[in-house]
Amino acid sequence: MQRAMEQFKEGLAKIHALEHALGVMQYDFETAMPRGAGEDYAKTVGALSEEVYRRKCGPEFKALAGEIAHDGEADPVARREAEVLLEEIGRMDCIPVEEFVAYEMEQSLASGVWHRAKVENDYAAFLPHLSKLLEFKRRFALYYAPEGKPYDTMLDEYEKGMTTEALDGYFAMVRQRLTPLVEQTAARSAQIDDGFLYRNYPLDGQRALSDYLMRAMTIDRDFCTIGEVEHPFTTNFSKHDVRITTHYYENAVASSLYSVIHEGGHALYELNTGDELVGSPLAGGVSMGIHESQSRLFENLIGRSEAFVGAIFPKMQALFPAQLRGVSARDFYRAVNKSTPSLIRTEADELTYSLHVMVRYELEKRMVDGALDPRDLPGEWNRLYKEYLGVDVPDDTRGVLQDSHWSGGSFGYFPSYAIGSAYGAQFMDAMRKDLDVDAVAATGCLAPIVEWLTQRIYRFGRLKTPGELILETCKEEFNPRYYIEYLERKYAEIYGL
Amino acid sequence: MQRAMEQFKEGLAKIHALEHALGVMQYDFETAMPRGAGEDYAKTVGALSEEVYRRKCGPEFKALAGEIAHDGEADPVARREAEVLLEEIGRMDCIPVEEFVAYEMEQSLASGVWHRAKVENDYAAFLPHLSKLLEFKRRFALYYAPEGKPYDTMLDEYEKGMTTEALDGYFAMVRQRLTPLVEQTAARSAQIDDGFLYRNYPLDGQRALSDYLMRAMTIDRDFCTIGEVEHPFTTNFSKHDVRITTHYYENAVASSLYSVIHEGGHALYELNTGDELVGSPLAGGVSMGIHESQSRLFENLIGRSEAFVGAIFPKMQALFPAQLRGVSARDFYRAVNKSTPSLIRTEADELTYSLHVMVRYELEKRMVDGALDPRDLPGEWNRLYKEYLGVDVPDDTRGVLQDSHWSGGSFGYFPSYAIGSAYGAQFMDAMRKDLDVDAVAATGCLAPIVEWLTQRIYRFGRLKTPGELILETCKEEFNPRYYIEYLERKYAEIYGL
Repeated sequence: MQRAMEQFKEGLAKIHALEHALGVMQYDFETAMPRGAGEDYAKTVGALSEEVYRRKCGPEFKALAGEIAHDGEADPVARREAEVLLEEIGRMDCIPVEEFVAYEMEQSLASGVWHRAKVENDYAAFLPHLSKLLEFKRRFALYYAPEGKPYDTMLDEYEKGMTTEALDGYFAMVRQRLTPLVEQTAARSAQIDDGFLYRNYPLDGQRALSDYLMRAMTIDRDFCTIGEVEHPFTTNFSKHDVRITTHYYENAVASSLYSVIHEGGHALYELNTGDELVGSPLAGGVSMGIHESQSRLFENLIGRSEAFVGAIFPKMQALFPAQLRGVSARDFYRAVNKSTPSLIRTEADELTYSLHVMVRYELEKRMVDGALDPRDLPGEWNRLYKEYLGVDVPDDTRGVLQDSHWSGGSFGYFPSYAIGSAYGAQFMDAMRKDLDVDAVAATGCLAPIVEWLTQRIYRFGRLKTPGELILETCKEEFNPRYYIEYLERKYAEIYGL
Repeated sequence: MQRAMEQFKEGLAKIHALEHALGVMQYDFETAMPRGAGEDYAKTVGALSEEVYRRKCGPEFKALAGEIAHDGEADPVARREAEVLLEEIGRMDCIPVEEFVAYEMEQSLASGVWHRAKVENDYAAFLPHLSKLLEFKRRFALYYAPEGKPYDTMLDEYEKGMTTEALDGYFAMVRQRLTPLVEQTAARSAQIDDGFLYRNYPLDGQRALSDYLMRAMTIDRDFCTIGEVEHPFTTNFSKHDVRITTHYYENAVASSLYSVIHEGGHALYELNTGDELVGSPLAGGVSMGIHESQSRLFENLIGRSEAFVGAIFPKMQALFPAQLRGVSARDFYRAVNKSTPSLIRTEADELTYSLHVMVRYELEKRMVDGALDPRDLPGEWNRLYKEYLGVDVPDDTRGVLQDSHWSGGSFGYFPSYAIGSAYGAQFMDAMRKDLDVDAVAATGCLAPIVEWLTQRIYRFGRLKTPGELILETCKEEFNPRYYIEYLERKYAEIYGL
């Protein structure tokens, strides 16, 4: 058994190194690679992915993982590692290696094509790649669960146990409870002046603001960098190497402000996983839903709270005295919470955000089911934006091409954002029983909040399932009513409804 | 044979993918990685390097390479690939794999330590790592050539056939012919006003200048990016993915100006290797000496020529009208060629440059021979700077810690710079027989020069040896007199000697 464990750890270390390199290559692709290098990049991703596949799915390693997972005497952490791996292997192993590699290469190419297509408003260029990725992913889902609905299989990969049925119910509730609120606030939109957010905010000042926010969030810069990209994201290769990114717009200060807090929430989760998990498959966030719960909790429940806005506002005024002359903290708070149906998900206010996600959920579900041909996607996108948000989409750049997810083969990911928002509100409700959250936020130093989350969520990495984390932290199963009620309360106050 | 060739190509592709990933990881380390991630980085570099070692030195692959190298019927490109690989394998295979991996990890760690040590002027922190790297490299040289002098073995790795004996002769000539010139120009230093180079040059303008210079050099930005780092370098993963870097100083415009042209010269070599070599071990520059010949040819023989300075000066005046008010192109030309003994190699003028290299050559030779203990290195460094350049070194940051090379285990690399400068002058002499180089440089578009070099040097990658390239291009073996005579001529004109 001792020998099996050693061999298992050795195998894990090799796989970890390959995955680390693949992660760095992807980060490099997003941040530094010249655009003409796409084919070379795809080839190397293909070759390394094949190596990962062969190592993970090799009969010897699989047998070792099985042996450890079922050995009642083994160290429980090692057993959980083996379980997590066996599940990953199960999803991979059913795919013939050539198809797996072809998919990885196609995905790498498609990302490059999407970047260009978005800039050039050229959906036609992206369409064949989208179709191929969709085809791959549908086939993979059927390999894994021939009897299951492919979209459910995809959902389950990002959020264990999530189903179309549960999401349909969730979004029905969102629609029923939030749509009237969206209409009421839209009608009162003149109440809130947010014009000062769109004055000229020089980038150097915005960069200094990012540094300030990262300090407020207790992000240790020795282990977390901030980069500048077109589409902000967070990635990490261990708790010692976390990278957030942002995009600065000179004429929209709130964009990077909340992007940094959002990505900072992802970063905090990774930075605070247990030291003992470094290099293990259990290091890192347990699911996309829990991950997004943290980014959206920091971005909205804290970052857009009156207490935290009040805390950071003096710094903002010091950085941008002319731009914020005559503006109060309360004005700023109301401006960053102004609800306006709009085109871009990542820039959306808290209230309309879920409607953006709902559009994507419906469309990807229908594409995976085969009910919607990707050729008809832009038309359907535009139709749903009109129906749910009341806005006319002027072009695909600001429409169906705005998000990177599908170009990365991520079908079934978008619901994580909506679920994450709801998880976040439920966690926050539990946190308020232990902590005076507003009093902490008002100090401008979020350390006690980070510590509370670390003790209950972060440190466990993937040791516990999302369901276990919610049940143990909130003493209740997942319940979206906290989220809906929070939004109703908040917006009633802001708009005096 | 067909089957052997296929297996060989498959093996090569896997090795190439691993080396590509290792290259990207190193680029990422230099440009993006948070500093706290050093140990994780070293582990992954160790694991991937081990994989490269096992694939290259595996008996099957070695046998294939041997079979192809000695098969008179094989495609000559494949034979040369096999030969180049066998030589690499020969240098690697004699090292026990554990030592090879330990070295790669130590090298990765040492780079991080050096970065910090330089900032903090802390030679003591770097010393144990330098000693370890030196010990590794000396041992590796003895594994490879137990009877040879370790330093000669190291030189030969960067520049095939180069020996201490040849370099001693070369540097003696440099010393004898250039030292009097350095003294003469230093005495007349008041003749040249270069104060305007040190006015305030905003970074945005400097960035625009870099874009302009890369266009002048015909560098295709689809395949070549420019990044910003503390210590400029160039790297590439194929001819489709070349990265130059620079460092902008607000108060020293010539620094990035010539750094970009220097690194641009490296980039042009890589960008213009033959398409048929992509992915092959023959892609890329053949030696460090030939590589530096290109960077230094563009930086100095062209970039610091009166013709090219005249061509770019109007652009500089347009970018920096206030800073260059009342300055003529001739003034600018004289200023960027002002010779002043100084502390920093990368900022040195053309005339004193070789003396900086000579210091490093002598010191590393003595360290490798065991005649100089790394503990005594700073004192010896400072003594030689005083002796050769007449300057007092105020601290190790501006002394022995200034260059990254030793922290990367590169002992025997420095002479490439001096040899490269001399190769460059010899190539330039040959070029002048075919092209009116000054007339081309005066147009501000260097395409005909790049084309001439591509036809004779770049496109061959590693198909030809450095000696073959020089002999075929210059119709003569390597001869340093072109370099010395060029400097004598140039500086006599500038200083009216």
